[in-house]
Amino acid sequence: MTRVVDESVRAAPLPTLDEVARMAGVSRATASRAINGAEKVSPRARSAVDAAVRALGYAPNPAARSLVTRRTDSVALVVPESDDVLFSDPFFARTLSGVSRVLGARDLQLVMLLAGPGDDEQRMLRYLRNRHIDGAIVVSHHRKHQLSDQLAGMGLPCVFVGRPWTSIDRVAYVDTDNVAGGSQATEALIARGCRRIGTVAGPADMTAGVDRLRGWRSAMREAGLADDAVVHGDFTEAGGEAAAEQLLAEHPDLDGLAVASDLMAVGALRALARAGRRVPDDVAVVGYDDIGVAERTSPPLTTVHAPVGDMAEQAARLLIEQLDGGPRAMRIVFPPSLVRRESA
Amino acid sequence: MTRVVDESVRAAPLPTLDEVARMAGVSRATASRAINGAEKVSPRARSAVDAAVRALGYAPNPAARSLVTRRTDSVALVVPESDDVLFSDPFFARTLSGVSRVLGARDLQLVMLLAGPGDDEQRMLRYLRNRHIDGAIVVSHHRKHQLSDQLAGMGLPCVFVGRPWTSIDRVAYVDTDNVAGGSQATEALIARGCRRIGTVAGPADMTAGVDRLRGWRSAMREAGLADDAVVHGDFTEAGGEAAAEQLLAEHPDLDGLAVASDLMAVGALRALARAGRRVPDDVAVVGYDDIGVAERTSPPLTTVHAPVGDMAEQAARLLIEQLDGGPRAMRIVFPPSLVRRESA
Repeated sequence: MTRVVDESVRAAPLPTLDEVARMAGVSRATASRAINGAEKVSPRARSAVDAAVRALGYAPNPAARSLVTRRTDSVALVVPESDDVLFSDPFFARTLSGVSRVLGARDLQLVMLLAGPGDDEQRMLRYLRNRHIDGAIVVSHHRKHQLSDQLAGMGLPCVFVGRPWTSIDRVAYVDTDNVAGGSQATEALIARGCRRIGTVAGPADMTAGVDRLRGWRSAMREAGLADDAVVHGDFTEAGGEAAAEQLLAEHPDLDGLAVASDLMAVGALRALARAGRRVPDDVAVVGYDDIGVAERTSPPLTTVHAPVGDMAEQAARLLIEQLDGGPRAMRIVFPPSLVRRESA
Repeated sequence: MTRVVDESVRAAPLPTLDEVARMAGVSRATASRAINGAEKVSPRARSAVDAAVRALGYAPNPAARSLVTRRTDSVALVVPESDDVLFSDPFFARTLSGVSRVLGARDLQLVMLLAGPGDDEQRMLRYLRNRHIDGAIVVSHHRKHQLSDQLAGMGLPCVFVGRPWTSIDRVAYVDTDNVAGGSQATEALIARGCRRIGTVAGPADMTAGVDRLRGWRSAMREAGLADDAVVHGDFTEAGGEAAAEQLLAEHPDLDGLAVASDLMAVGALRALARAGRRVPDDVAVVGYDDIGVAERTSPPLTTVHAPVGDMAEQAARLLIEQLDGGPRAMRIVFPPSLVRRESA
């Protein structure tokens, strides 16, 4: 390891507003108005000031500026997960891209905050409480986080992607009807003649997991079928594989499997292949999500489409409405839809 | 789409510092000192104030606070790439996790900023210029971004992961010796008897791409071999596949292939398999990076290990040194090392 220290390079003194005004050929007051985005500045003055700011590397004192505007023009995307979950589940990439599209059009800077449990979470809450950002969009919240209570308590404009566990009358959220989706998946299996249908459910501490399971159960009871073949997974490939293995061991007569996420279904397909069960002939499988995984499995997955991109865009729009003074507690719920491929 | 508006829920008036002090049973001055992290506060007073802040959802005015401390206690990880690149290249997950570890131990909040070219980049630069964060770590910079000039110009504490194109005497960076690594990969192919060795090089607008190619070329010339079989890829799987296809079409007698990233090597292996070439018997392949991809290919890749996690940790440490008043222009360069598996 080579370590080179160049002691001669230290920070230069920061340029001042006066220098910006001088270079732009405008008054100090005009330079200040242009920098703070006030209305009454001619386009020519504005672009001269912009050029001077860039040339000099001028940094307005953000604290002084925020005291006036009370705005940071930035919004947090809060992901209360560890970084390996973030990078392995395509749900986050879709969500990030939907949120970015809408915020970018309003010239709001998106900052992403990752926070596993413990110290990270406390630090992240302090960051939000200190209003380093104007608002927050929260995805993938587990029951233990109670982020909705915390955020509602601090009065921070926020929108949850997926119904939170608590404070649902105090915070905005977008969701898809996961109960209806769970039923649709199960009804597709029943319609093709499956009678012994198990489910790899999602985590019991996430509303999407609980709702999809509720949908499965209601469809099974409606059809007069036994609803005892349930194992919970954690929305990961490995978790889905382990859960499917356990289901097959406990219920060797399974002929249908409703899996609460496509990523878990990838693992379940692997477990079924290892057990020598053909899909869909021996065991038909329906996944959930349809976000780029389902069409690449073998066989491609019949699945329930959750409109993740649309949900993310709507979440960003709801947040912008709040920043513009609109109401805090709104909800938007998208209907799910079944996408037929080859696994069922 | 169901849209429910609950007009009754609006923001409550924000709690004040006086209310926090009253609830904690301390003076206003003590409450203020506890909130701003000053030293002379008893542990008991501090925890009473913390509890009151949480209970009331008190948000100190961050602008007023920053005017005093001049600190936000947050650091940006700047990724000047689109979100699909972020999520498909394991380099970013490793870097994020290394940086988080070090910053977390110092209780600094990490915020991630993604910015493709154009408006996004301008917005991100404005965000940095306005000092919403105390410093920045920049990864994956292309020549066109000139981020190093911009950041050096604004005097923002910053560290680059990978040598930047310009301002290298004005900004800190960590890097691995990519010229030496490129040579090591090539020498491994020469040593096993390959004589017609091509390379899938990295992007010509990234220093890692250019340096690895330079290393390949110098090893080839040293051995008296022709250095004409070069095609550039973009560090993605698809890019590596297309580049390898082109190389095979132009140089059907290839017996060795140095690929400038493992992700591109995955694509190259696919192209070789399709062309009916056995690896390593017909064409030996060496990759680059060794960050979780190389051991899972078929056959597993012999590759050059770039210590991405260590680089990320050192980058975070260099940034902390700057925040503590240390020098701006430091560099740390790690040696690469060859990892032998089965592809060469």
